[in-house]
Amino acid sequence: MTDISPLAPKSLPALPEIRGVQLATAETGMKYKNRADLLLAFFPDGANVAGVFTLSKCSSAPVDWCRNKLALAEPAKALLVNAGNANAFTGKAGDQAMAATITAVAQELGCNENQVYVSSTGVIGEVLDAELINGHVRNLAANLTEDLWQEAADAIRTTDTFAKGATREAVIDGQTVTINGIAKGSGMIAPDMATMLAYVFTDAAIAQNVLQELISSATDRSFNAITVDSDTSTSDTLMIFATGINDKITDPGDPRLNDFKAGLDDLCQDLALQIVRDGEGASKLITINVTGAAHDHAAKTIAMSIANSPLVKTAIAGEDANWGRIVMAVGKAGEEASRDDLRILIGGQKVTEHGMGVEGYDEDLCTAHLKGDDILIEVDVGISDGSATVWTCDLTHGYISINADYRS
Amino acid sequence: MTDISPLAPKSLPALPEIRGVQLATAETGMKYKNRADLLLAFFPDGANVAGVFTLSKCSSAPVDWCRNKLALAEPAKALLVNAGNANAFTGKAGDQAMAATITAVAQELGCNENQVYVSSTGVIGEVLDAELINGHVRNLAANLTEDLWQEAADAIRTTDTFAKGATREAVIDGQTVTINGIAKGSGMIAPDMATMLAYVFTDAAIAQNVLQELISSATDRSFNAITVDSDTSTSDTLMIFATGINDKITDPGDPRLNDFKAGLDDLCQDLALQIVRDGEGASKLITINVTGAAHDHAAKTIAMSIANSPLVKTAIAGEDANWGRIVMAVGKAGEEASRDDLRILIGGQKVTEHGMGVEGYDEDLCTAHLKGDDILIEVDVGISDGSATVWTCDLTHGYISINADYRS
Repeated sequence: MTDISPLAPKSLPALPEIRGVQLATAETGMKYKNRADLLLAFFPDGANVAGVFTLSKCSSAPVDWCRNKLALAEPAKALLVNAGNANAFTGKAGDQAMAATITAVAQELGCNENQVYVSSTGVIGEVLDAELINGHVRNLAANLTEDLWQEAADAIRTTDTFAKGATREAVIDGQTVTINGIAKGSGMIAPDMATMLAYVFTDAAIAQNVLQELISSATDRSFNAITVDSDTSTSDTLMIFATGINDKITDPGDPRLNDFKAGLDDLCQDLALQIVRDGEGASKLITINVTGAAHDHAAKTIAMSIANSPLVKTAIAGEDANWGRIVMAVGKAGEEASRDDLRILIGGQKVTEHGMGVEGYDEDLCTAHLKGDDILIEVDVGISDGSATVWTCDLTHGYISINADYRS
Repeated sequence: MTDISPLAPKSLPALPEIRGVQLATAETGMKYKNRADLLLAFFPDGANVAGVFTLSKCSSAPVDWCRNKLALAEPAKALLVNAGNANAFTGKAGDQAMAATITAVAQELGCNENQVYVSSTGVIGEVLDAELINGHVRNLAANLTEDLWQEAADAIRTTDTFAKGATREAVIDGQTVTINGIAKGSGMIAPDMATMLAYVFTDAAIAQNVLQELISSATDRSFNAITVDSDTSTSDTLMIFATGINDKITDPGDPRLNDFKAGLDDLCQDLALQIVRDGEGASKLITINVTGAAHDHAAKTIAMSIANSPLVKTAIAGEDANWGRIVMAVGKAGEEASRDDLRILIGGQKVTEHGMGVEGYDEDLCTAHLKGDDILIEVDVGISDGSATVWTCDLTHGYISINADYRS
C-alpha cells in the first residue's frame, strides 16, 4: 500500500524561502517509523493568521484551540503539526496533552501560548503522547531554518502517497510577494469549509480580517469543491500565515489585492487537486462541471451527488460509459433538474439529450476517454444558469484494501 | 457474480394464495437468459391500490404513470413488471413503449388502461422493447394462477442473488386476512420514500385512502430505513393491492386495523432487510440504533450518515473496531451531537464515554462480534430523546467487482 498514486505529479515543486517563516521537522516514531512526523513552523516577527476548519460536530481538540485563538486576533508565532494521531475524541486527557505541547513550544520559543497554533492528524480516539512530542521541541527550536519546505510537506503526511505543495508569486502594489502552501489528505476527504490539513504562508502584508475573507473565498472553489469518499474529517484545517505584519492592506475590497487573490485561489485549487490525485485507491481524476442549475449552490449539490455516487465512481473505475448512473445521481440530488432537457457530455461528447440517450453516439470514443486518467463529465440540467465544478476520483479495489485494514 | 449472498435466508418462505390475486410469469430474454423476467398480476375483481415512489427528479416513465393513475382512485386490475430494463431516461420513445404494453394488457384482460400498473427495473437509458413484451402478453393471460408466488418473486430480480418474499396474517374485526409481499433490490439502494420494487398483496377490505396511509407509515421504518450504497434509484416503487374491494374499513384511525397495521409494518421491514441482506457484495448485516438525538428526524440523519460512510462500512468489512470512524460519521451528519456525552456501543459493549474511548474496553470481544455477520452499533448522542434505527451492509471488494462491470 505504499505505492505512489498513479495520478501523482512528477515531483513536488521547489518552494522558495519565505521571509519570516522558519521550519524544522523531527521523527517521533509515534506511528510512522523512519520518517519525520512532526513539523514546527516559527514566525520570529509574528504573522497575521486566518483559517477555516471542519464543521464536524465532533471536531478535534486542536481544531477547537485554533478556532478560539484566531478570535483573539493576535499575531501567530508558531505552528506545531504531528502526523499519526489526530488527538480527536480524546476528551479531557486529549485537551491536557495538547496544552502540554503548547506550553513546551511557547516556553522554548519565548512567546505567548495564545500565539501557538497546533494540528494533529491520524487515528481518531487515541490520546496524544505529549511527553514524546515535547522530547523533540528543544531540538526543533534549535534547528529552525528557512529552506525546509520539502521536508515540511513530507512530515505532515499520513496515508498520503506523495507530499503536496504549491507556490505562486503575486504582485501587490508593485511589490512581488510569495505564497507557499503545503497540504495532506488522501481519505476521509469531503471537506466542509476546509480540508484535512493545509497551510499557506506568505510574506505579504495583509490584515487579519482581510486574510480571513481571502482564505474563506479561496476555499469555496478549491478544498470545498473536492471529495474522495464523502467522509468529512474531524480535523479539517486550512490556515494562512502572512508574515508581512505591518497591516499594509486593511480593506478586503482593495483592488491592489486582485493579483494576490488570483494567486491564492489558484494555489488552493492546486493543493486541493493534489489531494484528489492522492485519493485512496484513485486511478482517475474526475472533473464534474454542472451548468443550467437553479443557482450555483444547487449546481454544487448536484455535482457533489454525482461525485459521491459509488455507482458513478465504480463505473468510471471500470471504464464503462454507463451514463444512466449519472442520470440517477442527478435525480437523487434533490435539486431542480429537467429530466427532458438534461444534457450529459463525457469527454466532450454529448451522450444524452431530450430526456434520452443520443442515438448513435460513439460509445467507443467515450470508452477511449474513460481509459485515460483525466475524466471530464459535463452536465446541464436545463433549469437556469447556476454552475459549479467539483473534483473527485474513482472508487476502486484499492480503496477497500486500504480502509478495511487501516489501523492494523 | 452469481454466488448467493452469504446473508441470504435459507429459503423463500411459502407464500399462501390470496383470493383475488392471479399470477403468471414469462421468459422474454430481454437481458437475462433462461429465467423468467416478466410478471403479470391480475385482480379479476379489482383491488384497492396505494403506493409510494422514488423522489428522484429523474423518475422513470413507469413511476410517473403509476403516480398519475393512483390519483384517479380507480380499482387496479393488473400489474406488469419486467426485469432487465428500467425504461428510465428514455424520453418519448420510452413513454410510447410503455403505453404499448399497457394497451396490450388492457385489451387482453378486458379492462381500462387506467387500471393497469407497470414497473420496469434494470439498466437505465435503454428504450423498452414493447414488441418483445407484447409477444408474451396473451400467454401470460392464459396462464394466470393463484399459486405462483415463488416464481413471481424470482421473475422481478435483477442483480439480486435470491428471491425476496414475506407473508403475514392479521385479524381485522374477527376475520383473518393474509398479506403477501415480494421485493427486489441489491444495489442503487438508498430508498427515498420507497425502494427499488416491492409489492404487497392482501385480501383485506380497506379503502384506498386508508391503504395509502398504512403503506406510507410502514415505509418509514422499513424501506426508508435501509441503505446499501447511498444511491437512490430512478425506479423505486412500493405498491399495495387489497382485493377485498368492498371498502369495509374507511377510517385510517379505525382500531380494527391495529393488527393489520402491525402485520404490514412487520412484513415491510422483513422485505427491506432481505434487500439489505442481498446488498451488492454484502458480507455483514449492520443494524444502527441512534438515540439521544434532538428529534427522531435528526436521529435518522445521524444513523444514515453512519450507514452511508464508506470508512465505517470498510472498517466493518475488515472486522476492525475502528470506532473513531463512527465518531467521524456522527460529526459530519450536521445534526446536534454532544461530543463529550457521545456513547458508542459495538455488539452491546460500550467503547466510548465522556468524549473519549472507554479505558480498558475489551477490544477482543468487539472483534469477536465483528467477525459475526449480524453487527449491532448503538450510538447515543446525548442531546434529547430522538431515536431511529437503520440497516445497512458492509462495503467490500464484491461491490467494486459487481459495479465496475455491470453493463458488460
